[in-house]
Amino acid sequence: MEYERVTGKRYRVLHPRPAYVLIVGKWGGDDRGIMAASWVMPLSEEPERLVVAWDKETHSLSILRKTGVFTVNVVGPELTDLVWRVGSVSGWEVDKFREYGIEVEQARSNGGMVLKGALGWVEARVFRIVEDLAEDVDLVIADVVDAYARRDLYDPRYGWRASKAGILLHASGRAFFTPGRMVFAEK
Amino acid sequence: MEYERVTGKRYRVLHPRPAYVLIVGKWGGDDRGIMAASWVMPLSEEPERLVVAWDKETHSLSILRKTGVFTVNVVGPELTDLVWRVGSVSGWEVDKFREYGIEVEQARSNGGMVLKGALGWVEARVFRIVEDLAEDVDLVIADVVDAYARRDLYDPRYGWRASKAGILLHASGRAFFTPGRMVFAEK
Repeated sequence: MEYERVTGKRYRVLHPRPAYVLIVGKWGGDDRGIMAASWVMPLSEEPERLVVAWDKETHSLSILRKTGVFTVNVVGPELTDLVWRVGSVSGWEVDKFREYGIEVEQARSNGGMVLKGALGWVEARVFRIVEDLAEDVDLVIADVVDAYARRDLYDPRYGWRASKAGILLHASGRAFFTPGRMVFAEK
Repeated sequence: MEYERVTGKRYRVLHPRPAYVLIVGKWGGDDRGIMAASWVMPLSEEPERLVVAWDKETHSLSILRKTGVFTVNVVGPELTDLVWRVGSVSGWEVDKFREYGIEVEQARSNGGMVLKGALGWVEARVFRIVEDLAEDVDLVIADVVDAYARRDLYDPRYGWRASKAGILLHASGRAFFTPGRMVFAEK
């Protein structure tokens, strides 16, 4: 096989990966933020934590520092445009909720907000923010407080019926994929 | 929509996500390890770093502490069984390279090894290991040293032709997905 050296944006070798909508702040509060993120992953099971690579200069991180809570919302292809919009505009310049008519609902357990129309979500509370790992990004470590998924699209034993749900995966720019064929490892 | 609370293995709400093969250790050295991981993500562009949630007790992490280098190998569906095997057996008990006939090649820039048959890979060098974030996992922060991708499957401007490449995504257990339909956000 012939390989080519990747010289720019080498993080793309690790894409496509799930594109989530992160909503920051408390239900009913004035301080709130929304953004798209695919540099999010589970960290651990003991205890259940997740981790987000969060741009230092974002409005949403400033809100997170004040409120301490956010939700990771899993979305399907019907929200592609919303993901793109909240991911390409700064909350310092635009009230994205108002500008894009984004509707939120009350989270069940962390005091935060979830995205109306999401396939599911994780409710998180900041455990620690590690600030000295990179110049442009802080690493947010958060406890998983609660999680929900659409009953018709999630199997408690196996997780998402991902092809049916169309879990959105970010490739680059405006380009996304949804999961296609299922493959099983042999016994 | 009707949502159900997710009570067990809540990390699955954040799956499917790319399933990589991590190879640890130096080319030509005796100390080497191999495992599957999907809790891997880019951390930052300035500088280019990535992060891996790494089980504390693994053989591969012990090797990483000694050698400091690893590669993140991106694979397609033809390597599903290999991913499953290296992900479900401990390197403390089995020499997985020998047992499964795994072939490696010399990495180009970090002194490590890459998986023969991979679609592409990132060569990484440990920057820091953060040990106090969870009981079961250490967070490995690594510098991106180099990256390669198959010429026929990767576009320098847009990244993977992911449907064609069949980038493997882990759902749960033996179940994986490959990317299907491409979706674009509107201009």
